[in-house]
Amino acid sequence: MSELRHRRGEGDGNDKLENAGESDHVDSEEEKNIEEKYVDELAKSLPQGTDKTPEILDSALSGLSSRWRNWVIRGIFTWLMIAAFCLLIYGGPLALMITVLCVQVKCFEEIINIGYAVYRVHGLPWFRSLSWYFLLTSNYFFYGENLIDYFGVVINRTDYLKFLVTYHRFISFSLYCVGFVWFVLSLVKRYYMRQFSLFAWTHVALLIVVTQSYLIIQNIFEGLIWFIVPVSMIICNDVMAYVFGFFFGKTPLIKLSPKKTWEGFIGGGISTVIFGLVMSYMMSQYPYLVCPIEYSESLGRMTMDCEPSLLFRLQEYTPPQFVQPVMKVFGMEKLNIYPFMIHSLCLSTFSSVIGPFGGFFASGFKRAFKIKDFGDVIPGHGGIMDRFDCQFLMATFVNVYITSFIRTATPQKLLQQVYNLKPEQQLQLFYALKESLEHRNILNLVP
Amino acid sequence: MSELRHRRGEGDGNDKLENAGESDHVDSEEEKNIEEKYVDELAKSLPQGTDKTPEILDSALSGLSSRWRNWVIRGIFTWLMIAAFCLLIYGGPLALMITVLCVQVKCFEEIINIGYAVYRVHGLPWFRSLSWYFLLTSNYFFYGENLIDYFGVVINRTDYLKFLVTYHRFISFSLYCVGFVWFVLSLVKRYYMRQFSLFAWTHVALLIVVTQSYLIIQNIFEGLIWFIVPVSMIICNDVMAYVFGFFFGKTPLIKLSPKKTWEGFIGGGISTVIFGLVMSYMMSQYPYLVCPIEYSESLGRMTMDCEPSLLFRLQEYTPPQFVQPVMKVFGMEKLNIYPFMIHSLCLSTFSSVIGPFGGFFASGFKRAFKIKDFGDVIPGHGGIMDRFDCQFLMATFVNVYITSFIRTATPQKLLQQVYNLKPEQQLQLFYALKESLEHRNILNLVP
Repeated sequence: MSELRHRRGEGDGNDKLENAGESDHVDSEEEKNIEEKYVDELAKSLPQGTDKTPEILDSALSGLSSRWRNWVIRGIFTWLMIAAFCLLIYGGPLALMITVLCVQVKCFEEIINIGYAVYRVHGLPWFRSLSWYFLLTSNYFFYGENLIDYFGVVINRTDYLKFLVTYHRFISFSLYCVGFVWFVLSLVKRYYMRQFSLFAWTHVALLIVVTQSYLIIQNIFEGLIWFIVPVSMIICNDVMAYVFGFFFGKTPLIKLSPKKTWEGFIGGGISTVIFGLVMSYMMSQYPYLVCPIEYSESLGRMTMDCEPSLLFRLQEYTPPQFVQPVMKVFGMEKLNIYPFMIHSLCLSTFSSVIGPFGGFFASGFKRAFKIKDFGDVIPGHGGIMDRFDCQFLMATFVNVYITSFIRTATPQKLLQQVYNLKPEQQLQLFYALKESLEHRNILNLVP
Repeated sequence: MSELRHRRGEGDGNDKLENAGESDHVDSEEEKNIEEKYVDELAKSLPQGTDKTPEILDSALSGLSSRWRNWVIRGIFTWLMIAAFCLLIYGGPLALMITVLCVQVKCFEEIINIGYAVYRVHGLPWFRSLSWYFLLTSNYFFYGENLIDYFGVVINRTDYLKFLVTYHRFISFSLYCVGFVWFVLSLVKRYYMRQFSLFAWTHVALLIVVTQSYLIIQNIFEGLIWFIVPVSMIICNDVMAYVFGFFFGKTPLIKLSPKKTWEGFIGGGISTVIFGLVMSYMMSQYPYLVCPIEYSESLGRMTMDCEPSLLFRLQEYTPPQFVQPVMKVFGMEKLNIYPFMIHSLCLSTFSSVIGPFGGFFASGFKRAFKIKDFGDVIPGHGGIMDRFDCQFLMATFVNVYITSFIRTATPQKLLQQVYNLKPEQQLQLFYALKESLEHRNILNLVP
């Protein structure tokens, strides 16, 4: 423990992966020999993050101690990334979708590369193609599902695209079957175990990366705010936990990540909640950010104009009893807030309580395979996957949150589906609905 | 090769897992030592199918040679399983759903048990619970989705169930998060690699077993015929490929399963196509088998009565030019068939061309981890997973086939969704639809 406390907050890259002092030996010694040897052998061949820094920066910072240099480099690139993020939002939903796709491909590549190294499949030329083929197939499936969901009416107008829409699942499944058969045919004796392990590895990577980026894109369509706020929360939590840990960190939080401290966890959490409230308040005012992206029949194109929903209209709100004395001090009795801010409380709580577990999971994974980072794309941060580990879990949460608490089946959405029916079916539905409404005395036919 | 040809058709259980003659060495010798040793070590601790036979049967068959004895035992249990299958169909959709659930749990257990043995996690008490917890969670999610889809209207009537429906995804996701956090907290140094591998293993098992049994249940709701015909086709293909291989097998088909022959593959395929046609013809006549399972608003319960759809009504059909001479020989000019029979051709083609790859995949998996069978539940057949390996792929195909070619959005289904809206929203939709129909001159308000 003393060693842990000593090293806490030293900046990334100095973790010792082994704590020689511990002793939770359960296995027999013989087992240990074979397996440890195997894992140690592995570690030699795995890609290790190099912490490469641009040369100019390196020479400019040569006067600083390694701890502070790391701080500065990490800081600079954090700000660079935040700037890039703002630029992308300005670029609109299409730019964001493309970015999500790129990040997803890069994450997949990083995970798969570790798999290749772990199972050492240098002699199997087909396997690399096979993984990428599966990535393509599943992207085709998921992106297609999204596009059909949101642009169905438009796509159905073009004849050859209509074919792709109607048989989308069939085409995707056929593509997958080709990959499956290809895999079985590519099996080579002596490699069986590694091939199956990599097959599983590829599928878990797809599960983590592709399915969740599909959910992220759904969130974007719900309105940019549902994408920007959660992503910023995770970034804020990451940064603030690091800052609080750096300055105040004392109590180690979890064995898995010796540098994480309770001080960072709590400080980061409180910062995230406040940050989330402020950000939601600011962003709720812009229709560009709060309107869902929909196809407008009358305009003949996608729009992000709308009458903002109730969530994004200021409402008077009487705070609970125990908060009122505090309010009186500031001379307020009622609060004017956007209801979205209450939802933002749930999001920020999740991102600061459960979110970090995404990071712990990633650390554990790195430790399991004795690698330092997933890659070395971003100086001071490691690979793309090192930055996005928590984003995936958060995206799923937001998506589930929206479907459960926000989005209710709207008449508009259903009506779109009705219009996809044949005219005589539309008529049939119309009369059935009319009868039912009359029967229940909802429809009063006298205007 | 000569060894292969020699052993072909010897009945299960005598495969040598190593063909010492082959030489596709690519790795260095040193690598081989460590890994081979590791895999060989594994093989010792893995559960091996025991081919246990009930004692009465064993003594009754003691006069036969081992090859024939195996044939008889396998045959008897094949017929027993077919009888059980018929009984279940008689029992109706609920009995089938429960069976699917049981088979699924058993398959999961078999896959997971191999995982435990492979990664030797005897010292980790939490892990077994964790796998089962994930199984429960994902079943809760998928079965819930199904039930809501088909019984939504009924469930929404009961107040406390309404809560479960509205927040279904949120509850499922929360349950999953608990498992995820539990996993991260249960990580123990020195076991990291094995814990992550088993985590992946569990998720792949869930992907194979749970998601696909969810699709099977959807198929059942579409009408029992969509479940019975595909399942029987796979059984028929299995049995006939075995029979043809046993009597005529000469040319080995694939290295992975030395006992599979081209003769069996082709003979099985042709039998399956014929069997599929005959079976579809016979079954299309019974409303009990062809009607989708729906909730009837007027009866207040589930029904399987319906006016059979066009698929299941005899239609006159002029066969293509090149078949007509053959037809003339039999004195026929036109064919009276159910359109479903044409679909059955697609299903049987898939089940005899791609279906067996599910089996090859399972064989490869067994070889990779040097086990003979997944379990020993069914004498002569091995584990449940050994019998159902091809069924999963087939179920997905059927499901995709139905969504792509059979099921179109029906007015009834949409109407159900409309009824889930608030009354004023229903009215809003009604007027919008009315306007649109009038605008397009579809609705002529004079009755």
